[in-house]
Amino acid sequence: MVDTTAVLGETLKTLIENKKFSTIRDMLETMNPSDIAGIFQDFSDEKLPVMFRLLPKELAAEVFVEMDSDQQELLIRSFSDTELKEVVDELYVDDAADIVEEMPANVVKRILRQADPEMRKMINEVLNYPEDSAGSIMTTEYVSLRPKMTVQEAFKRIKRTGIDKETVYTCYVISDDRMLLGYVSLRSLLLADEDEKIEEIMDPNVISVCTTDDQEEVARAMSKYNFMALPVTDKEGRLVGIVTIDDALDVIEEETTEDMEKMAAIMSSDDKPYLKTGVIELWKARIPWLLFLMISATFTGIIITNFEDSLKACAVLTAFIPMLMDTGGNTGSQASVTVVRALTLGQVEFSDVWKIIWKEIRVAVICGITLAVAGFLKIFLIDRMLMNNYAVTFPVEIVICSTLFFTVICAKITGCTLPLIAQKAHLDPAVMASPFITTIVDVISLIIYFGIAKLILGI
Amino acid sequence: MVDTTAVLGETLKTLIENKKFSTIRDMLETMNPSDIAGIFQDFSDEKLPVMFRLLPKELAAEVFVEMDSDQQELLIRSFSDTELKEVVDELYVDDAADIVEEMPANVVKRILRQADPEMRKMINEVLNYPEDSAGSIMTTEYVSLRPKMTVQEAFKRIKRTGIDKETVYTCYVISDDRMLLGYVSLRSLLLADEDEKIEEIMDPNVISVCTTDDQEEVARAMSKYNFMALPVTDKEGRLVGIVTIDDALDVIEEETTEDMEKMAAIMSSDDKPYLKTGVIELWKARIPWLLFLMISATFTGIIITNFEDSLKACAVLTAFIPMLMDTGGNTGSQASVTVVRALTLGQVEFSDVWKIIWKEIRVAVICGITLAVAGFLKIFLIDRMLMNNYAVTFPVEIVICSTLFFTVICAKITGCTLPLIAQKAHLDPAVMASPFITTIVDVISLIIYFGIAKLILGI
Repeated sequence: MVDTTAVLGETLKTLIENKKFSTIRDMLETMNPSDIAGIFQDFSDEKLPVMFRLLPKELAAEVFVEMDSDQQELLIRSFSDTELKEVVDELYVDDAADIVEEMPANVVKRILRQADPEMRKMINEVLNYPEDSAGSIMTTEYVSLRPKMTVQEAFKRIKRTGIDKETVYTCYVISDDRMLLGYVSLRSLLLADEDEKIEEIMDPNVISVCTTDDQEEVARAMSKYNFMALPVTDKEGRLVGIVTIDDALDVIEEETTEDMEKMAAIMSSDDKPYLKTGVIELWKARIPWLLFLMISATFTGIIITNFEDSLKACAVLTAFIPMLMDTGGNTGSQASVTVVRALTLGQVEFSDVWKIIWKEIRVAVICGITLAVAGFLKIFLIDRMLMNNYAVTFPVEIVICSTLFFTVICAKITGCTLPLIAQKAHLDPAVMASPFITTIVDVISLIIYFGIAKLILGI
Repeated sequence: MVDTTAVLGETLKTLIENKKFSTIRDMLETMNPSDIAGIFQDFSDEKLPVMFRLLPKELAAEVFVEMDSDQQELLIRSFSDTELKEVVDELYVDDAADIVEEMPANVVKRILRQADPEMRKMINEVLNYPEDSAGSIMTTEYVSLRPKMTVQEAFKRIKRTGIDKETVYTCYVISDDRMLLGYVSLRSLLLADEDEKIEEIMDPNVISVCTTDDQEEVARAMSKYNFMALPVTDKEGRLVGIVTIDDALDVIEEETTEDMEKMAAIMSSDDKPYLKTGVIELWKARIPWLLFLMISATFTGIIITNFEDSLKACAVLTAFIPMLMDTGGNTGSQASVTVVRALTLGQVEFSDVWKIIWKEIRVAVICGITLAVAGFLKIFLIDRMLMNNYAVTFPVEIVICSTLFFTVICAKITGCTLPLIAQKAHLDPAVMASPFITTIVDVISLIIYFGIAKLILGI
């Protein structure tokens, strides 16, 4: 795939300077909304409204959805009421709700005033669901059918109302009191006889979620079952909306970013693109964990201070502290990331705790042996032979290598159990895959190190 | 969403014991293929084929696709040739190719022998594309239309051939020599007049990928443009297949797991579920990085050994080594993970390097000041006042806090530039978000620490 967006952007800029507006319009019409929004991102605040007005009505709304909220706000402020109405009328409800959520109150008021009453009602409905719930990402525009309709009547209904619906490929069958009875795909409608009744061809085994379900759970369900859309019902089982696969994909991308940030000790910030995020915002997202981890390091400090005399007696031990701590931290986070990922993908749950610990212990034993042997050889070859550091005596080597072995085992057990405990305690397991675990393992490895040193070296 | 799968699994087991096979069949028919595969996972090798034979033909194939490869192999070995043919005939080409890839040679031969000649040809075609390429995840079953067809003729074609196609919702318009001319959605076909020509309603601005493009790039494009399917062409622009959104979702999940594993210093293993991965496999995936990082720690050892006399002169400095190294590592990986994620989501590229460094320097300065001030207070309050550790004199405090400040700045700059350099050098940026960066920052922070100590304390 060749990235032509940058080239097109340059061409457009030249065309604007030469005021070739009809050429620009023709060019834009052939382009994808998401690419146009990408190009518009580099435009100045004066140029943007001019360019936006060149877009045909329907495309304009699609491009608008793809723009970032700063630019959306700028455009809304520059719109006349008629222009605003035109854009809002073309939006899908879930997109409109997303946009409204990001706008300041006075802009929200203007948007809602321009929306027609039904749209306004639907936007408000979606806005009322808790953030990160199925309700907040659903759209209320779907095709509903009745069980007694014939296939022919269903097609008529789809043709009449389908133009405004986000998807027509899955239609939902509801009773008179809006209870969800089943679903029928457009494909099976196409392949059915015209006179067949919907209730004969619909699939009554429909998997649905509740408006209050977590959006991540919804996205995982869609990914697991390969669904293009998932119906959302209220607590009584009445159909209130659908979540479409494009929104589920966004949720997965968003949650992945959050998990990775947690692993790097970053507090979740909002999902602005990196270059648009302010310096203070980045600082706010990063400093809390840094402070917390720095203060926690007091414990490692206390341990080292307590063993200051041992270190004086055998100064060479200090040189291996970073290696032992890092190896412990690395083995620990390997175990925790593996378990966190398995939890996210639904491969394991808390009841598997003993199976997981048993597996990690076995892995730890062979990892520990490998590292101890390799560490022994490395110290012998590099520190003793190559660098003539004879302070690393044979007993010191034994201390270091046995510390390696026991640290690896403790680190793996800690690494695999903490995320499971977090999950059980309804905390986020991903936080446990963070440097948090490194800090805990640091303390463990130092205690093991000095304990073994006292035992073997008698210091 | 209530998890009823476990309950259903128990019920099924009781029903099998009581040999209520017709009840089982009725129950299974109402369930989702992916859930059935989940329940089958716990069944013994003897029970599985019995249960599988209870499934109606079409559902059987869908369940088969969702099972893991060990169980698929077991079933294939227990199938008669006729049974195997029935399942293979119902598979989509991309699923069949996925299954064939995981099987041992003799099983592959049996599968290909049972597939009809056209299917065999298509499977072989998909198998020939490089792993992780668009060609390897595409299906060759799609609906193709001709520009001169009318809408009515198009519907006839969809009804005749659509039952075997993975998606009928986007149809691709091709010329006589199979060049991709445009696409038309089933929705626009439905809303168009029966006599309109396809070339009048098709969208000629179709975004396509090449068979050799990276699968991750394909998945990102589908997510960016909100496509349900993306056409795949050969180098000459002839349509050879399509990638559907469900496969793109799988790719994103897979790549996310790989990225997280890299961040935790795990070599990518195959994507088996955790509990199914053997101890030796886990060891193989984890030990290379652990060994490499342990050996790299030689550098921190060398630095500490070189400054052994300074540490003897001022023993209290040792106690702060873990805190300084950890804080450096944490700030560094914050920057690198942010940049790696922005690269993955296409928010930044190498040319943004100066913008990124400038932003990180500003963040680093305020993070550094915050940490230095907090560190100063913490040492004063906890170490001096609370723990009466008077070895931490005022000059020592100054050494520690200024090390904090400079370490944070160096760590952030290293953290943000390394992934960009990796990307530029066509290496994987995610590896740079790994403990690898911690190891580099460890060395930097120790050099700064001892340098400042020498300067201020004159030791």
